[in-house]
Formats: sequence, structure tokens, C-alpha cells
Amino acid sequence: MKKIINKPSDVIQESLKGFAAAYPDLVRVHVDPMYVRSASSPVPGKVAIVSGGGSGHEPLHTGFVGDGMLDAACPGHIFTSPTPDQIYEAAKAVDSGAGVLFIVKNYSGDVMNFELAIEMAAAEGISVANVTIDDDIAVRDSLFTQGRRGMGTTIFAEKICGAAAQAGYDLQSLAALCRRVNQRGRSIGIALTPCTVPEHGKPTFELPPDEFEFGIGIHGEPGRERRSMTSADDLVETMVRSLLEDPLYERTAREWDPATMAWKEEVTSSEPFQQGDKLLALVNSMGGTPISELYIAYGKLSEICARQGMKIARSLIGPYITSIEMQGISITLLRADDEMIEFWDAPVLTAALQWGV
Amino acid sequence: MKKIINKPSDVIQESLKGFAAAYPDLVRVHVDPMYVRSASSPVPGKVAIVSGGGSGHEPLHTGFVGDGMLDAACPGHIFTSPTPDQIYEAAKAVDSGAGVLFIVKNYSGDVMNFELAIEMAAAEGISVANVTIDDDIAVRDSLFTQGRRGMGTTIFAEKICGAAAQAGYDLQSLAALCRRVNQRGRSIGIALTPCTVPEHGKPTFELPPDEFEFGIGIHGEPGRERRSMTSADDLVETMVRSLLEDPLYERTAREWDPATMAWKEEVTSSEPFQQGDKLLALVNSMGGTPISELYIAYGKLSEICARQGMKIARSLIGPYITSIEMQGISITLLRADDEMIEFWDAPVLTAALQWGV
Repeated sequence: MKKIINKPSDVIQESLKGFAAAYPDLVRVHVDPMYVRSASSPVPGKVAIVSGGGSGHEPLHTGFVGDGMLDAACPGHIFTSPTPDQIYEAAKAVDSGAGVLFIVKNYSGDVMNFELAIEMAAAEGISVANVTIDDDIAVRDSLFTQGRRGMGTTIFAEKICGAAAQAGYDLQSLAALCRRVNQRGRSIGIALTPCTVPEHGKPTFELPPDEFEFGIGIHGEPGRERRSMTSADDLVETMVRSLLEDPLYERTAREWDPATMAWKEEVTSSEPFQQGDKLLALVNSMGGTPISELYIAYGKLSEICARQGMKIARSLIGPYITSIEMQGISITLLRADDEMIEFWDAPVLTAALQWGV
Repeated sequence: MKKIINKPSDVIQESLKGFAAAYPDLVRVHVDPMYVRSASSPVPGKVAIVSGGGSGHEPLHTGFVGDGMLDAACPGHIFTSPTPDQIYEAAKAVDSGAGVLFIVKNYSGDVMNFELAIEMAAAEGISVANVTIDDDIAVRDSLFTQGRRGMGTTIFAEKICGAAAQAGYDLQSLAALCRRVNQRGRSIGIALTPCTVPEHGKPTFELPPDEFEFGIGIHGEPGRERRSMTSADDLVETMVRSLLEDPLYERTAREWDPATMAWKEEVTSSEPFQQGDKLLALVNSMGGTPISELYIAYGKLSEICARQGMKIARSLIGPYITSIEMQGISITLLRADDEMIEFWDAPVLTAALQWGV
């Protein structure tokens, strides 16, 4: 294992130390418990948005902390959920009194620890709502998940809801918008190589030189199946077809109702893609993929979408939700409405995304 | 070789096709001869800036085409110079009559082909000036170079001069500023892995699991020497010490004088770093390095600079001048003056850098 690190056990802390040094105007890093908050938080009157999850997916989530996106992010150890006290303390630090929305990727550990944090925060009188992102169509259940996993739609949700919060949405409307984004987003990923978790020192799986993993998660877990390596056109065609043909997926999520201070079961369903759809498209590097290859994939993606009578209204291309140094890509397509596109275009100032400011 | 490509010979064209599809508001891709120009070029009254070089270093240079940076970029084949006619046609397409500055990385093929293009453009009555970037302190001469190689300072030069051109600098002042940026910038790179050029299909070198290359170039060529793998702190300490202790370097560059329409020899020298310096710092991924490792390196870099009584005024962290999927980093430090920092902060709207707009 060759990495630009010191002790494997210090990777997260040292990386956050460097991150804090690099963006002193944007973020504050709290060390114990560990969370990153926006330098301008809490913003009076604004609903705060807090996300988090295992590290190793950088820039997600810490790179999205700042004006117009997340108020705080809670990084766990690599591929490991943050603890309830991290999440609770982050929420307390950024709550202006207008409440806090938790955006949670659907992994069992994350879901459980965010739920515990919600109960801790609610007990302290903080108004909280939560939305679970489960947009990865590759597998229904997994080692780490009940139901589908959370993937690239998380970034669309964080950006769109971040702008909506800035525009004055209250907690309930913000949670409803976030849920709607999740219903309209789908992701699928492939890997050409595994990744190596520093504390393990060994690749997460072995892959022959002529095969790739189809339907990977973001934790270095193997994909849905192993296939023979093929051309970029064929890869992208297969990925996009699986997204467009994905059957309706009904999920039941536990959501906290800040009004009744109790859990309720929220049943929602994904929506089918349709001719005429305007899309937000993410072509994401898993960490080690050259940007030139992402552009090749994007070219094919935009060709397929045009052929299907759909228009990519906005796109994002680069490493945004990664698995350390893994080579591979994921594609996320979101059926966007005008409100979502307007919020996507709104100003954002974070380490990973900046525009309009 | 596993890559997200179709035919190896189509990589550049297909990648540019995807790039054009992704950024229709920002760029226009001209296919034969191949160049990328800003959608808003030519800008009346503004000196145009044109750069270029071998592909495989994305986002350099095409990702820096747009408002406030490059007017055009000419991509060659992978690790191969663009041809004189590409450069000449690009210059002709973006010249508003105020002249064109060529920013050229110091590699023998690039230097030769930009020189030929200059003579072609001058013969057509286009006012041209050129500045050669040679900031890589690793080696004096190399397989590809007479003198030092061009590296990360190129990005600082393109951004700073791009803003100066926007602010109304004439061709001569712009060339003088660019030369000054080059005199004040130094780079050094290391590699943990080689990269694979698609058309060759094999890694550019072999590196044992416990060694790294110190003083690499950007074309997958091996470094100045092979060393035993060490900690991030030690790596960065060694890199930064080599930058700070670099002796004065005098170079003679051939520069076109648009007034006399003739070549002249311009002798310049690098400047020593000093206590009190304000720095622009680039911690650059060679393509496959996780951003968390870049932050660890940046944390150490900022600590060393503080210890030396120097202040990092602005920083840029990410994959900006890459060697396909190579794992490794380069560090560039530029002694910035207030003018340079002001131009660094000026609005820019390109695929790879956006702020202030």
C-alpha cells in the first residue's frame, strides 16, 4: 500500500486539519466530537442542513459545507458511520432555532446513528427532520443496507435543498423537497479497480485485468456482478439503460415528525423517466479516473439522452462521491423540475462547488 | 490496460466531443485542426491568450478556456505537442486585433511548434508574444527539454494573465507579467505509480511497491531518482525544502518581439523565496490521488511555510495538471505580489475553475 499519509489511524484527523488550513474563510473544523461546520453558521432564521457518513468519499460531505449547501458535515472513520454525538453536536452548533434537516445516505449504520442523534436533538428542543437517500439501483439489500444504497443523488439533494434553505424554506417544506429529489434520482456505478482502506492495507477486492464490477457501492464492496471489460460506449449504454429501465421502487422510510415528536413511516415511490424530461446529470469519478475518460462517458450519455428525447439541463462531471483511489465511475440522473434547476443554479460557495458568488 | 475508452486512437476526439457537450455555454471545439476556444472569443479590444500542449494533463489546458483565463487551448495527442497549424488557427480565431500571448510549457516539441506558429501568425499580421514556463526544479535538461520543464506555474500564469488581459493589459505588459510569474514560481513532483498511455497500453515505468519517484515530469517519465516510500510528512518536507532551497536559475528564452517582428533572447533569473513572502500554493494531484491525501499534504505544507515565516495567501488543491491516472502529487509555490493576488481573485468561468461570477 502506497499512500500519501502518515499513520493510517491519523488519516481522517490530519486530512481535516489540512482542509481547515486550506479553507479558513469557509469552514470551521471541530475536533472532539468531529464535525465541519460552515464559517457563517448558524445563519439566523435559516433552517440548517447537516449530513455526514463514512470518510473516504471526499469531497462528500465536508467539501459541500459552506454558503448555499451544507451547514455541517460529520465525517466518520473511513467507510464507517459517524457517531450519534458527532451528529447531535453538529446539529446543536448550526441550529439557528429554525430547525435542522438531516440528509442521510441509506446505510444501516448511518441510518441508526442519525436516528439516535435525532432523538438526542429533539430531547434538547431542536426541531429536526430527516430524509434518507436511497438512489442506487444496483442492489435491493446489501451487507450494509436495508433497501437501496445512497449515492450521487445525495449531492443533488444537498445542493438543491441548500439553496432552498437559503431562500427561506421552512423545515417541513425543505424535507418535502428533499424527499422529492430522492424520488426522482437514480444512480449506478462501475469499478475498474478496488480501493485500499489505509487501516487494512489491502485492496477491498481482487479484479482480473480484463474484468470490471457492475453495480458497485461506494465502500469498496464488490458490485452486483463481474463482467468482461468492454468499450466506454458499451459501458455507458449498459449503465444508462439500467437507469432508464429501472422499475418503480417503493420504499418505506422512518421519518421524524417534529410536530408530534414521534417517528412515522413515510412510503414513497420512485418516478419513471419520461420523454421530455429535463435532467440533472452527474458523471462521477470514483476517485482515480482521469477526467478525459469522464468526458468520453459524458459524451455518450448525452447522446443516449438525446436519443430518448430527454435533455440534460445541467451536468456535473468530476470526482464528487468517491471511494478513495478507486478507478471507475458512477452516473446519476435526476428528473429535474424548474424549481430544482433554479436551486441548482443558485450561488454556492464550498470547497468542492463554487458558482454565482 | 483498463480504461473507460473506445478505440485508443479516438480518445482525444471523443473526450473533446464530451467536453463540448458538457460546456456548451463556455467553449467551442474546432475539430480540424483541433482547438478549443472560449465561446465569447474574440473579445473586442482584449489581448487573447492561447496555450496548449500534449493531452493527458486534463483539465490543463482545455479546462481553463473561458472568461478570465484562456481564449483558446490546443490539445496535441497524448503527451505530444500540438502542431503549428493548430496553434496558428486558434490564434487567428481568437485574435480581436489586440494581439495574442502564447503561454508555452518548456518542452522541446511545444517550444518548436509554438515558434513556427508565431512566425505563421506574424506573417498574417497578427501581433504575437510568447512566454515559456520552466518552473520544474527537478531536472535541468531532460529527454523532452532543454532547460527546466514547465509545470504548475503554468496554471498560475494562465489565471493571472487571463485576468490582466480582461483588465485591459496590452500585449507587452501582459508578456512582462507572465514572465514575472514564471520567474517567481517553482514546482516539484513525485509519483507513487506510473500511468498508461492508451495507445501504448503499458505503464510508462515499473515501480516496486515500496518505492516512489522523486522529481517526476508530467509525461509519465521517471523522476530524478527513485526513493524508498516514506511518510506524507517526510515526502512534503523533502519536496518543500527542495523548492525553498532551489538556487537561482538563469534561463535564456527565445521571445518574439512583435515590434521588430524578430526573435530576441530574453535572459531572466528565478527569484529566491524570502521570509515575509506571500505565496500562491498549488497542491496538485497527478490524476489518481484521493483528495484526502492532498489535504494531508497541504496541512504539512502550510505548517512548513508558517515555520519559514511565509504566508500562503491563496491555495488551489486538486487535480489540475495531471498525467492521466498517475498517483502522486506536485507542489507549486509562487512568490506572489499584490497585483498577482488581485488577478488571482478576479472572476473566472471555465470548466475547471469558477469563482466570482
